[in-house]
Amino acid sequence: MQAYFPVLGVLGMMLMLFGLVMGFPLAVSFALDDGATQAYDLAILATFVTGLAMWLGGRRARRDLRVSDGFLLVAATWLITPVFGALPLMFYLPELSFTDAYFEAASGLTTTGATVLTGLDAMPVSINLWRCFMHWVGGMGVIVLMVAVLPLLGIGGRQIFRAETPGPMKESSLTPRIAETAKGLWGVYVVLTVACGIALWQAGMAPWDAVIHAFSIMGLGGFSTRDASLGAFASVPIETVTIVFALLSGINYATHYLALVHRTPRPYGQDPELRWFFGVLAVTVVFLTVYLLEGGAYQDGALAFRHVSFHAVSLATSLGLATYDYTLWPMFAQVWILFLSSFAACSGSTGGGIKMMRAIILYKQVHREIVRSLHPSAVVPLRLGRQRVSDNVLHAVLAFSFMYMVSIVSLTLILAASGLDLVTAFSGVVACINNAGPGLAALGPAGNYQGLGDFQTWVMSFAMILGRLEIFTLLVVLTPAFWRR
Amino acid sequence: MQAYFPVLGVLGMMLMLFGLVMGFPLAVSFALDDGATQAYDLAILATFVTGLAMWLGGRRARRDLRVSDGFLLVAATWLITPVFGALPLMFYLPELSFTDAYFEAASGLTTTGATVLTGLDAMPVSINLWRCFMHWVGGMGVIVLMVAVLPLLGIGGRQIFRAETPGPMKESSLTPRIAETAKGLWGVYVVLTVACGIALWQAGMAPWDAVIHAFSIMGLGGFSTRDASLGAFASVPIETVTIVFALLSGINYATHYLALVHRTPRPYGQDPELRWFFGVLAVTVVFLTVYLLEGGAYQDGALAFRHVSFHAVSLATSLGLATYDYTLWPMFAQVWILFLSSFAACSGSTGGGIKMMRAIILYKQVHREIVRSLHPSAVVPLRLGRQRVSDNVLHAVLAFSFMYMVSIVSLTLILAASGLDLVTAFSGVVACINNAGPGLAALGPAGNYQGLGDFQTWVMSFAMILGRLEIFTLLVVLTPAFWRR
Ligand SMILES: [K+]
Ligand SMILES: [K+]
Repeated sequence: MQAYFPVLGVLGMMLMLFGLVMGFPLAVSFALDDGATQAYDLAILATFVTGLAMWLGGRRARRDLRVSDGFLLVAATWLITPVFGALPLMFYLPELSFTDAYFEAASGLTTTGATVLTGLDAMPVSINLWRCFMHWVGGMGVIVLMVAVLPLLGIGGRQIFRAETPGPMKESSLTPRIAETAKGLWGVYVVLTVACGIALWQAGMAPWDAVIHAFSIMGLGGFSTRDASLGAFASVPIETVTIVFALLSGINYATHYLALVHRTPRPYGQDPELRWFFGVLAVTVVFLTVYLLEGGAYQDGALAFRHVSFHAVSLATSLGLATYDYTLWPMFAQVWILFLSSFAACSGSTGGGIKMMRAIILYKQVHREIVRSLHPSAVVPLRLGRQRVSDNVLHAVLAFSFMYMVSIVSLTLILAASGLDLVTAFSGVVACINNAGPGLAALGPAGNYQGLGDFQTWVMSFAMILGRLEIFTLLVVLTPAFWRR
Repeated sequence: MQAYFPVLGVLGMMLMLFGLVMGFPLAVSFALDDGATQAYDLAILATFVTGLAMWLGGRRARRDLRVSDGFLLVAATWLITPVFGALPLMFYLPELSFTDAYFEAASGLTTTGATVLTGLDAMPVSINLWRCFMHWVGGMGVIVLMVAVLPLLGIGGRQIFRAETPGPMKESSLTPRIAETAKGLWGVYVVLTVACGIALWQAGMAPWDAVIHAFSIMGLGGFSTRDASLGAFASVPIETVTIVFALLSGINYATHYLALVHRTPRPYGQDPELRWFFGVLAVTVVFLTVYLLEGGAYQDGALAFRHVSFHAVSLATSLGLATYDYTLWPMFAQVWILFLSSFAACSGSTGGGIKMMRAIILYKQVHREIVRSLHPSAVVPLRLGRQRVSDNVLHAVLAFSFMYMVSIVSLTLILAASGLDLVTAFSGVVACINNAGPGLAALGPAGNYQGLGDFQTWVMSFAMILGRLEIFTLLVVLTPAFWRR
């Protein structure tokens, strides 16, 4: 038990911080007098007191946080914070079950953006703010997780980024180097969010809508203040701003950071993921626009381009906002953009999926196997950008991608066993594990996750957290071997 | 061009042999006077003459067959023989399109067993014999392919079996060592087929039905003489015989061979795939029987056990015969048994899918990644039975499994783009690439592949051959690099 005190302490500190974070919607609710004020008081108290108790318990720890504590800390953080993030929603909407509230909060904090709520247009500003602010706070966590924590834990081949991570990474203790890295990346994140909010406002959104959607977009979350999502605004300028900032947040924040610090665009040119990210998107937009025009789904080329480019970017980056019910498209086009969400986002972004880095390595490994078949004695080194991909990294990437697909198949089977039809089950699992948001059929942009049973909702919540933590972080903690150490 | 003469010559010889093979249904048709005699004459002539021309063309070759010729030879054999295997069907059924006839013959020779024909019960004996004899001949090819050829070509990690292959494997020329290996394995195959035929006959089948189904079962093909498949016989003894021999053919023929030669059951104990193969089946049968009884799909435990055990074995081995329309089961149970076909069969069997060998390696690699996450400095060797799995084999297995899934996703997307619904497209691709046969929905055991459009039928034919050749054999030949050598 003693062994877990340091984790308990940090977890408690994070919960106390999370309680402070809830002060933001409380302040807004109070200022606007939107009728939801009492939902936050008790939630903040409960969160803060629980955090304090854990922190006091953890103070008895006799050692610093070590790298190996990272698994438990990360898994516990993402499993437990949704419990407290759900409280304001449960207090304001007493008919909302804990299952659904946890789902909504997990969907917020994992930046998935799948919702069980309707009537968003009539909700108090502070409630929608809290939902989207969870995206933003979750996005903060994700950036640090992806750029600093998972490379240290060696999850899914991310150790390849150890050398390239900005900030001092030499110490053996976990906290200081993560804190150092986080500072720089969060600076970029805050600056981009402010710019996004101003741009949305200039594009015609009301101020609070602009703030809330800026949180949603930069976290690549996808909650909106409207049941009709971004479609309610029916505005080309707003859609354009959304696309631009979604693309920015789909890029590795370490690349943004290096470019800003050294005041040169060179890091963008050297980022091996970037050209693939934009390449895949460009090909998709051209191809799907032609496909939908040819197939008669659209008569108007400009409208087809507008809908395709918005949803291709929104799904590929795993943002998940929608302006149109694309489940009206032919099945192939729907499946294709959902499929994009599984690999297109860059590795240090707030996006989900296996990440472009791993997709490139997988592609190169297949290419290498073909060359090896033709020339059995050839030695073909595998490179990502200027770095050589070691066998350890390759093994980890391949095992990760395999477990990603195993997770999708297993969770789909479990949902099918619970009575869900196959397309709904599969697309829901894919949308959740990729932290994309909308799936197909009843889970499409015009539907929502409200219709699921309690068990199915829990499976979806699990899928979101499993995907966000890149499978192995959670998997490791769920093995008996972890607890036997 | 010169470079391909040796392949052309061998291909011609194989076609001449294939022409001779057609003498069997001709002789049967003649003896039974079943009215299909004239379908074979011209087919045999066309096959033999084409083969002779290719053989004569290839005689100008100035060198022996080399290992690197293997890719083209294997790919061309499996792409071209269905053209000639289709001829008797086209001649007897003039309304059958070439697309459908090629599909039927490819389904025969790849031992897939998906059919576009109905009215099988009223077909001449020799036509059904030819369909199932193609399974058996295809199965002969598959055994040699899996045990001798693909390990030499290093496909998907099969090089791990090089050391264990029976027969002399030391020479550098391709033909003699493959011939030597083939002799031993085919001996086992013939003995088991004779035993299967006799057992089916003793179990109550009419003699010709017993012969034809013995071919179908030992090739793990799945064509039948009845539209209702094995369900038409409604016989527990026949189903039991089928299960037993499907299990035997789902085991590595090299293991059978070693056990017979050394007259000891020890090779079965040492085969690392066997315990997993039977373990997965046992768990499936128990679990699904309980699941279907609990869910109310069956009232009668014995009937549930009979249906579940038959279809679990039939799909897991990729046989694909059916006694009941299991698409009436809840979706989960259907998907589960279809899923079994993708990995359960052993690596040197006539079955399809990625093979249990690779499933074990994938499982162990995931386990290794978890251990590595917990103990970053630990060196965890990966073993299959008594052999150490080298990094090269591991890379190849992982790349293979990845490409297997990429193939399923890509072909499903292509079929969805052609207008097929998602469940039909996905299950059809899985059933074809696994060489299992029946899929779900309209492609289930009660339906058939007749309803597909021409383009969709070609995609399915491609999927069958792609799966049978373990992806890379065909993929390598389809790359420009292969032809530039
Ligand atoms: K999202
Ligand atoms: K089959």
